[in-house]
Amino acid sequence: MIIIMQSHCSDDQVQGVAERLAAMGMQANVSRGIERTVIGAIGDERVVDQEALEALPGVERVVRVMKPYKIVARESHDRDTVVQVGDVAIGGRALQVIAGPCSVETPEQMAAAAQAVAEAGCRLMRGGAFKPRTSPYAFQGVGVEGLRMLRDAARPHGLPVVTELMDVRMLDTFLEYGVDVIQIGTRNMQNFDLLKEVGRTHVPVILKRGLSATVSEWLMAAEYIAAGGNHNIIFCERGVRTFEDAYRNMLDVTAVPVLKRETHLPVIIDPSHAGGKAWMVPALARAAVAAGADGLLVEMHPTPAQAWSDADQALSPEELRNLMAELRGIAQVLGREL
Amino acid sequence: MIIIMQSHCSDDQVQGVAERLAAMGMQANVSRGIERTVIGAIGDERVVDQEALEALPGVERVVRVMKPYKIVARESHDRDTVVQVGDVAIGGRALQVIAGPCSVETPEQMAAAAQAVAEAGCRLMRGGAFKPRTSPYAFQGVGVEGLRMLRDAARPHGLPVVTELMDVRMLDTFLEYGVDVIQIGTRNMQNFDLLKEVGRTHVPVILKRGLSATVSEWLMAAEYIAAGGNHNIIFCERGVRTFEDAYRNMLDVTAVPVLKRETHLPVIIDPSHAGGKAWMVPALARAAVAAGADGLLVEMHPTPAQAWSDADQALSPEELRNLMAELRGIAQVLGREL
Amino acid sequence: MIIIMQSHCSDDQVQGVAERLAAMGMQANVSRGIERTVIGAIGDERVVDQEALEALPGVERVVRVMKPYKIVARESHDRDTVVQVGDVAIGGRALQVIAGPCSVETPEQMAAAAQAVAEAGCRLMRGGAFKPRTSPYAFQGVGVEGLRMLRDAARPHGLPVVTELMDVRMLDTFLEYGVDVIQIGTRNMQNFDLLKEVGRTHVPVILKRGLSATVSEWLMAAEYIAAGGNHNIIFCERGVRTFEDAYRNMLDVTAVPVLKRETHLPVIIDPSHAGGKAWMVPALARAAVAAGADGLLVEMHPTPAQAWSDADQALSPEELRNLMAELRGIAQVLGREL
Amino acid sequence: MIIIMQSHCSDDQVQGVAERLAAMGMQANVSRGIERTVIGAIGDERVVDQEALEALPGVERVVRVMKPYKIVARESHDRDTVVQVGDVAIGGRALQVIAGPCSVETPEQMAAAAQAVAEAGCRLMRGGAFKPRTSPYAFQGVGVEGLRMLRDAARPHGLPVVTELMDVRMLDTFLEYGVDVIQIGTRNMQNFDLLKEVGRTHVPVILKRGLSATVSEWLMAAEYIAAGGNHNIIFCERGVRTFEDAYRNMLDVTAVPVLKRETHLPVIIDPSHAGGKAWMVPALARAAVAAGADGLLVEMHPTPAQAWSDADQALSPEELRNLMAELRGIAQVLGREL
Repeated sequence: MIIIMQSHCSDDQVQGVAERLAAMGMQANVSRGIERTVIGAIGDERVVDQEALEALPGVERVVRVMKPYKIVARESHDRDTVVQVGDVAIGGRALQVIAGPCSVETPEQMAAAAQAVAEAGCRLMRGGAFKPRTSPYAFQGVGVEGLRMLRDAARPHGLPVVTELMDVRMLDTFLEYGVDVIQIGTRNMQNFDLLKEVGRTHVPVILKRGLSATVSEWLMAAEYIAAGGNHNIIFCERGVRTFEDAYRNMLDVTAVPVLKRETHLPVIIDPSHAGGKAWMVPALARAAVAAGADGLLVEMHPTPAQAWSDADQALSPEELRNLMAELRGIAQVLGREL
Repeated sequence: MIIIMQSHCSDDQVQGVAERLAAMGMQANVSRGIERTVIGAIGDERVVDQEALEALPGVERVVRVMKPYKIVARESHDRDTVVQVGDVAIGGRALQVIAGPCSVETPEQMAAAAQAVAEAGCRLMRGGAFKPRTSPYAFQGVGVEGLRMLRDAARPHGLPVVTELMDVRMLDTFLEYGVDVIQIGTRNMQNFDLLKEVGRTHVPVILKRGLSATVSEWLMAAEYIAAGGNHNIIFCERGVRTFEDAYRNMLDVTAVPVLKRETHLPVIIDPSHAGGKAWMVPALARAAVAAGADGLLVEMHPTPAQAWSDADQALSPEELRNLMAELRGIAQVLGREL
Repeated sequence: MIIIMQSHCSDDQVQGVAERLAAMGMQANVSRGIERTVIGAIGDERVVDQEALEALPGVERVVRVMKPYKIVARESHDRDTVVQVGDVAIGGRALQVIAGPCSVETPEQMAAAAQAVAEAGCRLMRGGAFKPRTSPYAFQGVGVEGLRMLRDAARPHGLPVVTELMDVRMLDTFLEYGVDVIQIGTRNMQNFDLLKEVGRTHVPVILKRGLSATVSEWLMAAEYIAAGGNHNIIFCERGVRTFEDAYRNMLDVTAVPVLKRETHLPVIIDPSHAGGKAWMVPALARAAVAAGADGLLVEMHPTPAQAWSDADQALSPEELRNLMAELRGIAQVLGREL
Repeated sequence: MIIIMQSHCSDDQVQGVAERLAAMGMQANVSRGIERTVIGAIGDERVVDQEALEALPGVERVVRVMKPYKIVARESHDRDTVVQVGDVAIGGRALQVIAGPCSVETPEQMAAAAQAVAEAGCRLMRGGAFKPRTSPYAFQGVGVEGLRMLRDAARPHGLPVVTELMDVRMLDTFLEYGVDVIQIGTRNMQNFDLLKEVGRTHVPVILKRGLSATVSEWLMAAEYIAAGGNHNIIFCERGVRTFEDAYRNMLDVTAVPVLKRETHLPVIIDPSHAGGKAWMVPALARAAVAAGADGLLVEMHPTPAQAWSDADQALSPEELRNLMAELRGIAQVLGREL
């Protein structure tokens, strides 16, 4: 940790910082330059309260030199982690495409969806029973019954299921219904109590990035889960909020190589929520795979225009099959499998 | 609701939209211009699924003409709503400054804080017992015991208390400890299950704006609370996330006049979390009052540099007193009281 | 054009809008809904001043139904435009990778660079003689002499050259030195006088996207060039400014399919300025090609660590060769050539 | 300057950095911590190429400790600078409100505008002869003739005039027509050739902030002007681009106290372009003055709804007079005059 002092700071102020550092268990190393005095603090900076130092008289700013995350950091674990969901491995040489409808609607819709997912060659299925909606007057999901429909549709095809947990009080129900992968949605990326509870289980977690979360905050949210003992975490980039209004969110494809460098955990991409329109999905999905993502989370509906939510962004079964074919070609170029 | 068709759409596509609208209970009014066909849909657009229309072939985009929010809308309730917290009115002619430490720490700290709050002439007190922190390794608040300390410190001065609720499972405890105003924090603005539960009580709620929430999303989040029956909602702008890195968040002072036009509910501002440094607080607080805010939520600590969290952004008791004097002058110019 | 009136507007206000529209040569079509009155305006909305309508009493907002751009719009020209630079075609089946150093430095550096560009299989060369730098104290480019060095290095390899024009007064010099493609940089995307002058020539123009320009503004900037008669325009996405600080700019890969839908002109990507670090370039370059870009603009330096500017983002000759091999594989999957 | 090395860097890499620093005339001070090696570089970091250091093997990142700006920095000049425009002082105890129409239209419109500006008690007048417009098909300003109309209208009232310079080739004409203050617009904040030319004159310059320029970049743009010898610079915040779409730009009121700390030069605010609607202007103008701005740049038109550009954001003469009265009250509270 480095403390940069203001240009005309006094000796007393430098002394004050050194004393506060000592009280925090850090050693101070004062270096007086021509224009600035800089104090190097030696010790474990993760336990130090940066704001308390910035509040001291004469301090201009404090720069951390260590990564704030530990368990999820590549520095602490050099090799790629593979998250195992039953027989399916996420994060290895094989790419995984998780497909299915935005919302669970009816047993018939789910059966048709599951068949289309399996036929396209995908190995996991998604579907939302509880839906976070901007408006209280919009369809909020079919609820618990949806967990059963999802499972019953996916099981005959051997597809593990992924579904979103919004309310911490529902966690036991999710476990009871055998949800294979818990999705933490964008709006809950920093719902710390939810993260802590999920961290106490061993169920794999897909952690979606918050709408304007920095990569660092996202890694710290994963650290909340990991700190509880659950290291089965998969990052999912799904577009961030910017000034652009030609499409819904901006897919941050740069986050893929950056995360791959910062963490050992798998990284997937949701091209459906990013662009917000079905016709953008193939281009974004190809870009994600080409950038090095370990997989995708894609919306597909047996009859998109009839979907109860996100009708405009779901692929049809045929579009999903075509996309899988394209992705296989790109995977091969990169020495991966799909 | 207006449906703008693509430039070379077919008659069948126009017919398809008209039929779908009819199935949704809307009447279609087709207008063929020189370059575009536009369909006006007459009926209650709030119950219509916009995405389902955008998924239809030939549709370019759908424009809503009505506000998506109802109960909180100025259109539905012309006069300003005053939220009553015991004897203290928020949203009337009098401005309210809610002050206190970021975190509840000890009974001594809280007693000193309460005295400083009262002496400065503030009529409500804040203090966090549960703290949302980016890092799982940072101080997470003293917990339930903090609710007691907050109440015990504030009561002798007749100050109603404001504190943040993060976990829906803690709501009953908050009610038990007599929390006067529940704060929903930035990270939970779209924690819809939490909003629904708080909507079932009648306790006044301060709803902070999400880090990158649009004004419209914020109003919809309030609508979640209001739809449950709780109309005692106070909006709190606290800075939004932008590209700027010279300070923490950008205080969106424009949100004050815009909200005042869109909703009848009170609007306050948190200048402490916006800038992130104590020296910026007076300028931002003055700007907020001058822009027409109904009050402020300000961090003050008896000894800022010793604070257990946000040490760099808390005012000292003296700084708070000086700020109150400045704000009184501005309030008077605007025909308000403090 | 659609004018949405405020909820309690008067008949006089509606009449006022209709009269103003008539004065603008538009016909008004008033539709009174249950909650809102909406006025459809029929005529050429491109010549209408939207703000003047929004200033009228009773108007809530004005929605345009037509695209504001004409010549560059896909609607006005269905087939992809191929921009010809000597023998090299940009925008056709073949992808083009334009490579070279950030800054022109010395004849030796340029000769080595040109050789590396040609050996990697690239068919155009870039190099900056005039450099836009944030600081007036940073290296500003070698100037006119750089145009000569660039041309002299590239000519023996048959490589057309691309270089940035910052100052309108330099245009004649650029033409004199035979610059094959003029680059308009990010900071000048809305330097309208520069766009107009470049529009009077027939030299192909690479128009980089402004740091926070919307796709619509970018298309309008191109329309400035096209309106002058120069239709040889190539869009270049190079990362936009967001809240993220883990890397320099966020590459907007979604802009590729969106532009391909909105315009008939070619679209390339600059992965070097986007991420800002050489190690990110291959992933971003692959993503760009996979998303459907028509080419790339890449920084390569014979000895990156010795570069006079942007040393940390230039590829080495070997890295460029390796990248080209990967890109060829992806191009093939997509039915394109490199 | 501090160089933070990667966690497993080698001794050779540390040595390489030290040698490069030596070649740049800096002295290296190596400090090996438990988890990181950090190198302090002593010397004038402003002349050092940061990217060249970041390109060296083993370097994680480079942190500057000095401000990159010199002449405009508060550090180099402690007292507030007052920019004198004829008899009018900008930056002293008195606030200055510069008012007038967006575009110069006709002699009659300008005469009426000048009278209204003077009657409201404003001491400078604005008006655009050359207009930067997003669309090439929109009104582009009346041109040179507008400079004459502006001057002829303002002179009888003793009002110095402010107008925007877009094209460097027009600078001599501006000087010839006696423009008192040159405005550099948002889109030209980093038009470095224009900044350099204006820096060679001694005419006061209003430097508007770029649409997504950081405070640091803005200060550096001013440094371009200052480095040429012209220190008569006035910063003008006019709203920045964010994700919010409830209004046009977000007024960054925090920039006022931050700039006041970083620079000795005056800071004014343009509330008209920020919100984009006339009804928002009074609230934003009051906030700006309350935050400590030295003045305002406001759009006023004799008959707003008839304005040739920005009709929806201009105040009427009466609205301007009312605003001035409110601002006088706030100025007085802050110990200033208007």
